[in-house]
Amino acid sequence: MKQFAVIGLGRFGSSVATTLARMGYDVLAVDTDEQKVERIVDRVTHAVQADALDDESLKALGMRNFDVVIVAIGHDMQASILTTVMLKEMGVRTVVAKANTELHGRVLARVGADKVVFPERDMGVRVARSLVSKNLLDHIDLSPDFSIVELVTPKDFVGKSLLEAGVRGRYGVNILAIRRGTEVLIAPGAKEVIREGDVLVAIGRNERLEKLGGD
Amino acid sequence: MKQFAVIGLGRFGSSVATTLARMGYDVLAVDTDEQKVERIVDRVTHAVQADALDDESLKALGMRNFDVVIVAIGHDMQASILTTVMLKEMGVRTVVAKANTELHGRVLARVGADKVVFPERDMGVRVARSLVSKNLLDHIDLSPDFSIVELVTPKDFVGKSLLEAGVRGRYGVNILAIRRGTEVLIAPGAKEVIREGDVLVAIGRNERLEKLGGD
Amino acid sequence: MKQFAVIGLGRFGSSVATTLARMGYDVLAVDTDEQKVERIVDRVTHAVQADALDDESLKALGMRNFDVVIVAIGHDMQASILTTVMLKEMGVRTVVAKANTELHGRVLARVGADKVVFPERDMGVRVARSLVSKNLLDHIDLSPDFSIVELVTPKDFVGKSLLEAGVRGRYGVNILAIRRGTEVLIAPGAKEVIREGDVLVAIGRNERLEKLGGD
Amino acid sequence: MKQFAVIGLGRFGSSVATTLARMGYDVLAVDTDEQKVERIVDRVTHAVQADALDDESLKALGMRNFDVVIVAIGHDMQASILTTVMLKEMGVRTVVAKANTELHGRVLARVGADKVVFPERDMGVRVARSLVSKNLLDHIDLSPDFSIVELVTPKDFVGKSLLEAGVRGRYGVNILAIRRGTEVLIAPGAKEVIREGDVLVAIGRNERLEKLGGD
Amino acid sequence: MKQFAVIGLGRFGSSVATTLARMGYDVLAVDTDEQKVERIVDRVTHAVQADALDDESLKALGMRNFDVVIVAIGHDMQASILTTVMLKEMGVRTVVAKANTELHGRVLARVGADKVVFPERDMGVRVARSLVSKNLLDHIDLSPDFSIVELVTPKDFVGKSLLEAGVRGRYGVNILAIRRGTEVLIAPGAKEVIREGDVLVAIGRNERLEKLGGD
Amino acid sequence: MKQFAVIGLGRFGSSVATTLARMGYDVLAVDTDEQKVERIVDRVTHAVQADALDDESLKALGMRNFDVVIVAIGHDMQASILTTVMLKEMGVRTVVAKANTELHGRVLARVGADKVVFPERDMGVRVARSLVSKNLLDHIDLSPDFSIVELVTPKDFVGKSLLEAGVRGRYGVNILAIRRGTEVLIAPGAKEVIREGDVLVAIGRNERLEKLGGD
Amino acid sequence: MKQFAVIGLGRFGSSVATTLARMGYDVLAVDTDEQKVERIVDRVTHAVQADALDDESLKALGMRNFDVVIVAIGHDMQASILTTVMLKEMGVRTVVAKANTELHGRVLARVGADKVVFPERDMGVRVARSLVSKNLLDHIDLSPDFSIVELVTPKDFVGKSLLEAGVRGRYGVNILAIRRGTEVLIAPGAKEVIREGDVLVAIGRNERLEKLGGD
Amino acid sequence: MKQFAVIGLGRFGSSVATTLARMGYDVLAVDTDEQKVERIVDRVTHAVQADALDDESLKALGMRNFDVVIVAIGHDMQASILTTVMLKEMGVRTVVAKANTELHGRVLARVGADKVVFPERDMGVRVARSLVSKNLLDHIDLSPDFSIVELVTPKDFVGKSLLEAGVRGRYGVNILAIRRGTEVLIAPGAKEVIREGDVLVAIGRNERLEKLGGD
Repeated sequence: MKQFAVIGLGRFGSSVATTLARMGYDVLAVDTDEQKVERIVDRVTHAVQADALDDESLKALGMRNFDVVIVAIGHDMQASILTTVMLKEMGVRTVVAKANTELHGRVLARVGADKVVFPERDMGVRVARSLVSKNLLDHIDLSPDFSIVELVTPKDFVGKSLLEAGVRGRYGVNILAIRRGTEVLIAPGAKEVIREGDVLVAIGRNERLEKLGGD
Repeated sequence: MKQFAVIGLGRFGSSVATTLARMGYDVLAVDTDEQKVERIVDRVTHAVQADALDDESLKALGMRNFDVVIVAIGHDMQASILTTVMLKEMGVRTVVAKANTELHGRVLARVGADKVVFPERDMGVRVARSLVSKNLLDHIDLSPDFSIVELVTPKDFVGKSLLEAGVRGRYGVNILAIRRGTEVLIAPGAKEVIREGDVLVAIGRNERLEKLGGD
Repeated sequence: MKQFAVIGLGRFGSSVATTLARMGYDVLAVDTDEQKVERIVDRVTHAVQADALDDESLKALGMRNFDVVIVAIGHDMQASILTTVMLKEMGVRTVVAKANTELHGRVLARVGADKVVFPERDMGVRVARSLVSKNLLDHIDLSPDFSIVELVTPKDFVGKSLLEAGVRGRYGVNILAIRRGTEVLIAPGAKEVIREGDVLVAIGRNERLEKLGGD
Repeated sequence: MKQFAVIGLGRFGSSVATTLARMGYDVLAVDTDEQKVERIVDRVTHAVQADALDDESLKALGMRNFDVVIVAIGHDMQASILTTVMLKEMGVRTVVAKANTELHGRVLARVGADKVVFPERDMGVRVARSLVSKNLLDHIDLSPDFSIVELVTPKDFVGKSLLEAGVRGRYGVNILAIRRGTEVLIAPGAKEVIREGDVLVAIGRNERLEKLGGD
Repeated sequence: MKQFAVIGLGRFGSSVATTLARMGYDVLAVDTDEQKVERIVDRVTHAVQADALDDESLKALGMRNFDVVIVAIGHDMQASILTTVMLKEMGVRTVVAKANTELHGRVLARVGADKVVFPERDMGVRVARSLVSKNLLDHIDLSPDFSIVELVTPKDFVGKSLLEAGVRGRYGVNILAIRRGTEVLIAPGAKEVIREGDVLVAIGRNERLEKLGGD
Repeated sequence: MKQFAVIGLGRFGSSVATTLARMGYDVLAVDTDEQKVERIVDRVTHAVQADALDDESLKALGMRNFDVVIVAIGHDMQASILTTVMLKEMGVRTVVAKANTELHGRVLARVGADKVVFPERDMGVRVARSLVSKNLLDHIDLSPDFSIVELVTPKDFVGKSLLEAGVRGRYGVNILAIRRGTEVLIAPGAKEVIREGDVLVAIGRNERLEKLGGD
Repeated sequence: MKQFAVIGLGRFGSSVATTLARMGYDVLAVDTDEQKVERIVDRVTHAVQADALDDESLKALGMRNFDVVIVAIGHDMQASILTTVMLKEMGVRTVVAKANTELHGRVLARVGADKVVFPERDMGVRVARSLVSKNLLDHIDLSPDFSIVELVTPKDFVGKSLLEAGVRGRYGVNILAIRRGTEVLIAPGAKEVIREGDVLVAIGRNERLEKLGGD
Repeated sequence: MKQFAVIGLGRFGSSVATTLARMGYDVLAVDTDEQKVERIVDRVTHAVQADALDDESLKALGMRNFDVVIVAIGHDMQASILTTVMLKEMGVRTVVAKANTELHGRVLARVGADKVVFPERDMGVRVARSLVSKNLLDHIDLSPDFSIVELVTPKDFVGKSLLEAGVRGRYGVNILAIRRGTEVLIAPGAKEVIREGDVLVAIGRNERLEKLGGD
């Protein structure tokens, strides 16, 4: 079982740490701020107060034994850069670092970060995507032209089969699955009748999916 | 065509604004900080320096004519709450507000926000999910048990057909599509041979998808 | 007997708390500032140092058992809003909140405050009213045109009966009561002679009362 | 017509200034903060930005020609004391000063303030009084034992005459007036029937008024 | 024997306190700053750390039993004013207060200070006086025209008697005393020969003393 | 006629500058603070805003042509030291510097200050001396044992001649002068009768002068 | 002729810039602080105020045309790291960066700095070396055991030839040169007589050089 | 054996202290900052936390028994000046002080510092010198015209003897030594063949050495 350490327990870092813990992984959560440590202590394997800029502290925590260390230090770019360097010099296999700006991201990559993430920028993209159609719930970009989308059933589809609704015929998209309450119907047949509240998972060209989603 | 305004041009807000503009929508970007406005001015329809806490400024910008106003004000919870109230009192149809904490989110909902988003928390969840398997690229949660995932082809699948690889037989998951370079193969046949660099889009039970993804 | 809690022990809050206690009610006074708590501890039923933004602290104080909780938090609008929300979510029956501005007041109402008060604004009105006539002591506005006022006897009334002074005849106002030292004469007769130092309680049209009050 | 100047345009000061202006008096509003001056400029006779600690500025504004100058300086006790002294030394007839604490009030009186007001403390008392009975709207304290109160008609009075309700008989209080919508009935007769929504203005002993007000 | 308390142990206050103690008086030295208290503790009768704005502390120190209390609070005019008021209200017989400005001085007098001193201003005058003649050591102003001065013997007087030097004849000033080493010769005779290093104490008209002092 | 420059226009410096100007000397007053310069400009020969730490500015002001430059810089010891050095390096003949502490004073002397003054300390001594006898007005210390003092006539001396009062006989002190209103009587005879309001200038041993001064 | 740019004009940076300019090279000096730019403007080829963190500014200054850019940014490690990255990304051939700590130095190397210097650390070493012998003026470390040193002639050598002094015989060191006033004698003969004030340049084993240097 | 104390443990001070300790001397390291003391404690003889502005602390540390005290206080010029004075007044034989500016340096000399060093300025000079030729490693300035330099062998010299390379003939410089790996060849013969990686130590006129160094 993989072991994770998360350094920096702001909103992003604590979300990473508690999600990993909920998925059953061992998670060590670290922050310089005692309060943030206390707030998370019941939701991760270990949580300790330590200064990520203190070489000795990081070593004492056995950082090099973790499979992945996430550097989720918020606003202090210098601290995020120095911590990343120290972790790589200690021999940590995989260091994932949060970047504030493109330049910060490039610096992190140059000093050895194995993966750089831009949570606010990426979430901005996701939220923007979800806003253009009020039915859209989630999506995966397959290419600039193709996506998989999860969307609330358009009102005029209710009571019709997929065939009658003409999803494939008129809209040119494939329905991969239907989420109905807590159930998931994978690869539903063309005769499956759409119910109110159904969530459709569809694949296809973006402009066709947008038409399906309405606005 | 929908019209959007984004108030607050931090990392999240500017990402929302530029994404919407790239998708072809009219976007007005607003911040109190002149520098932030200048940095985005070439990438949105309009960008203006204005104080979101000044009733008159908001009115002068014609806020009530926008279909959606996104309140992406960063750290100042009070400003985000007051701006949300003023926008709703002006008659803005849809106000989407960024929340810092659960409590902040509940206040925003109570004062009239039509949608509340938690970018750092949600992105923390997404990043955590992507870390548990180094092959996983993106995912949609269909239910607590089912997901669609996008993952890099495991090395030992290369050169085998989907059938030979036993994706459905051994792993019990369906391959919905294969992303190969800039192409996307929807609903690939069982005989399709997997190439190095292919990205598989699969649907199935989480524990089975995790096995497929390796670690 | 009603039970009250007052959160925020600035000049307004401590005045509310001590007044209620002097009237014989049970009052719990709460502030984050240890010094403010100490200064009031002998004048209310209980006084404790606690952080009104800490959900757990508020619960531990048994807030939901109080009949009325007054949120008298001074300058920090965000704290006053969040505390109000938390109290209502805990099930407190009546939350009275102090507002700094009209907008703040509307937000407090939207998030569930049962009553919103504007002490500085209202006191400004009262003081302004008292300044226009140096004899006016207190007043109740009955309508935009009618008031009850409490005023020092004009000098030229001294030694005359109410009839001789022509209070009703010439000024067109009714004397409801006369305060004479520690005594109160309710509904004094027309022959009652006005003494120096008497305070007249009169009802009538504003413009007539102003004439009576002199300037 | 009296002329007023208000120095310090916080919530209390601006409320005093605008109330006086609404009552038709000439009001000069002064503050060091340009923004506060701009916000009030349309609601008073004159509004100017000036430093109340600068002797020359005060003289240039012709302070000694005003009948009453209200020193409504908020938090800076030193500024409120020094300004009060300068105004009296300039020969201003009546200086009314806002005090933060009892000690501050005593200093203001010693250095020559003609009247000292404690808005937050006094408003705290008023609010506290209004909270103990949810029907009480306003009140005048005549003596420690007697008051005039304005209260919402108790539900079980509706449809009864004053006599039937036993206001005087059972409760021992006199009804001085009834406010009914925008009308005011002064000295209503015993046969006057109380309607829903009527507001009663009553005089009597406090303990009896409290019984009438309910809780 | 008189008893003194000094509140505020800056350079002026500590100099007052230690001078009084050296003269054999009982001196209580008070400051809010622990360090300042420690630095003086060995040179006065008692030294305590206390807050001069805390009524209770002042009473606990028995302020009203001191003959003279010196309020030597440095820069905080508000604190100096409030402390002065509290001391007078406690019944301290003589309160001497240090003023920063003329206005401050007038406020202190108005709130009851028995004596107001302006050390920097007065010392500025003394230093200025001493600079105009490099021989002048000290002086007492008797009137705008007359002074007593203490000055170093002009070089060309050395070896001459007072008569020969023509101090009275040519310069028109009287020599009251001669300070010679640790000795003092009061009312020296006209035949007294002036030695090098002698300090002359002279009385006379200012313009004549200036001539004697040289430049 | 000597020319003076004063650098630093706090309370001490401005008092030195205006005193010298009132005595008829040419005075240049310098401070970095524009406001302080404006406040003194009408009371000295020249007043300019300049930075005393800027070598070029000092030279441009022609500092080396002044007979005496007083460095009256208040709290910033470093600035006072550096300015003193620069002035001496420029060739200013006499630099008088204000010291905050004994150590500061020794540094100023070492870096070349021709005279070091300690206004607060010295004024503390003077004030202390004046407090021990409420009649004492001013004094010159001649030696640890002898002083000249200026004191208000003790009440029981009024109406008696110096002889009758026994000033010399009983108290063993010499009366050098009597200040009577605006007049000064030098070397008054033993028959001179003391009037109410007379100020006596006496020389003698300290313990005897103290007895004379009363307490 | 090489062209240099120096970014950051603190004590180190301005010393680098002016030294290069004095050696005849073209030097562009850059700082965000206008004052620092003005102070150096007469001593380098060009000096401009610009923000080293602003990509566009750096480009506008034509950074990529300089042979060597020295990043002498003082205390802000983040700025020094980001500027270094930007310069390398712009294609600057040689970037020399000042490091505060060892870790900072390693980060600078990782992000592409061609040379990292530690001025305070290195100067500390040099000063320490010079302190152990009061005759030592300068030195070059050739290896852990060998050095070249420049030292003041020991007193007992004066008047003796190198041979008589036994420099080589007794001390086992070679004299490479003698600095005598402004002259330099290279490879002096064994009969050369040492004069007072001569500076010897010697090569040899450290322990022997130390003996020669005395202490 | 000499004993050293270093006051101020910034980058320069700690480098001085640890270098001296590595050379085998007794070193006491002092700073007000506990953290800086802890970081150096294992690398010097003693390290203590103490305030260099506290006379008593310095005496308690026995400063006067040290042969040399280095005042390496960083940015606070006042502290560096005052500490220097106190050390000299205590009788410390040799005080070496770090100066920030030329003026600071002159003040330190005037108050008694035996030696003043300018580390950033001097290191700036050294670094500038090393930058003009990429082969130059270190150097000693013998006079404005002559130097000893240590430089990497130019590529076209490799494989040639000193004679063949024409070092003396063509370049007119003498090779004093060759550093080859860990060895040092003093006074190499003309036939010595230069190898790749050799470091040449040469003496000569600056313009000739520069030619040799290339650019």
